[in-house]
Amino acid sequence: MKWHFEDFIYGAFDGSVTTFAIVAGAIGASLSPMIVVILGFANLFADGFSMAVGNYQASKARAEFIQKERKREEWEIEHMVESEKREIRDIYEKKGFTADLLDEIVRVITSRKKVWVDTMMKEELGLIEDGRRPLDTAASTMFGFVIIGIIPLIPFLIIYVTGVSLNSESFFYSVISTSVAFFLIGIIKGRIVKKSLIRSGMITLLIGAIAASVAYLIGVLLAGLIS
Amino acid sequence: MKWHFEDFIYGAFDGSVTTFAIVAGAIGASLSPMIVVILGFANLFADGFSMAVGNYQASKARAEFIQKERKREEWEIEHMVESEKREIRDIYEKKGFTADLLDEIVRVITSRKKVWVDTMMKEELGLIEDGRRPLDTAASTMFGFVIIGIIPLIPFLIIYVTGVSLNSESFFYSVISTSVAFFLIGIIKGRIVKKSLIRSGMITLLIGAIAASVAYLIGVLLAGLIS
Repeated sequence: MKWHFEDFIYGAFDGSVTTFAIVAGAIGASLSPMIVVILGFANLFADGFSMAVGNYQASKARAEFIQKERKREEWEIEHMVESEKREIRDIYEKKGFTADLLDEIVRVITSRKKVWVDTMMKEELGLIEDGRRPLDTAASTMFGFVIIGIIPLIPFLIIYVTGVSLNSESFFYSVISTSVAFFLIGIIKGRIVKKSLIRSGMITLLIGAIAASVAYLIGVLLAGLIS
Repeated sequence: MKWHFEDFIYGAFDGSVTTFAIVAGAIGASLSPMIVVILGFANLFADGFSMAVGNYQASKARAEFIQKERKREEWEIEHMVESEKREIRDIYEKKGFTADLLDEIVRVITSRKKVWVDTMMKEELGLIEDGRRPLDTAASTMFGFVIIGIIPLIPFLIIYVTGVSLNSESFFYSVISTSVAFFLIGIIKGRIVKKSLIRSGMITLLIGAIAASVAYLIGVLLAGLIS
């Protein structure tokens, strides 16, 4: 099992936004803390699972696409030998090789089928079989969705357990805890791409705040149509 | 603007599952066709937008990670010249080059900084700057989410417009229209990876049915806790 950080970030972000939208909507509808918690968990597991399966499908499609392109190249080097040799020549000419040295390189590469196809895949098509296994990317997404997406719920878990009822401060709690989730995603991202953690945290917090506001406002707007 | 099919499939799949879960839940709660339609649209735009922003964040993190790795390689070829030359030699030895020819290749590649770094990126790290622009991948996801995720809603739009009320057949309609959405995603996927369209459609329909059932059942289970 290998973790994929982009997929983790993707799930973590979507989990935080949708949990916030549901929690905020539930507070707006004056539902009990227990219902807020239940709706939140339903989103975490149902939407998290749906996203993981969508991720699996997309990763698999990508892997199959690369496989298809490899088969096409394999066919081409058998049936269009000269033009494919010409392409290898062009690729190495662009790298700065000329004259006899270029001839020799073309001869060696085109004498080994696997090296020839690998070169066409990487250099002509820009495709690398990166070994991203669909199950790993899907699990990374679901893990991010659940483990970070639960943060906006935490205050309501505490409220529920301690038996306090929701009040005017509840919305404020959900904004704070969701902000913590976004900031944390930014920090994780910053660590991986080796940028300033505070800066990366603030940027993700800002983008997250916009996304969460839009999601929340669409909900409020459409809920207005219902009542 | 360039469309990215994996991102489209990802969004389309998640859009269909979540719309179905909401529609099915709303029918179970005996809500009116208008509310089913409104909740469905709220999900399409709010969750679709949230997913698009999450996609943007993940694509950007990936691009920044590749950029960071490039900077590291650039630093290495300036400060660890011999070991980096050794790596180029190893890479081309594995391709089948030997003796003087190998020496010449190493000399030419390491005489051009860009070619040298490009080679290390592709061959050592397996990273290609594929030019996937975050805005394009995000738009592809949102488009897939909305345009395919709306399909499970279509019967309810018709029911709402024609003024018929929901009845025992409504759940059946939503299952059928959601199945159409999954089958369509499979066909699109099959076309791109050049596999049998019917087979690809059926597989995606099966996976989608499992994902939608799980999402629906989690909702029903948690709703049972509320009432």
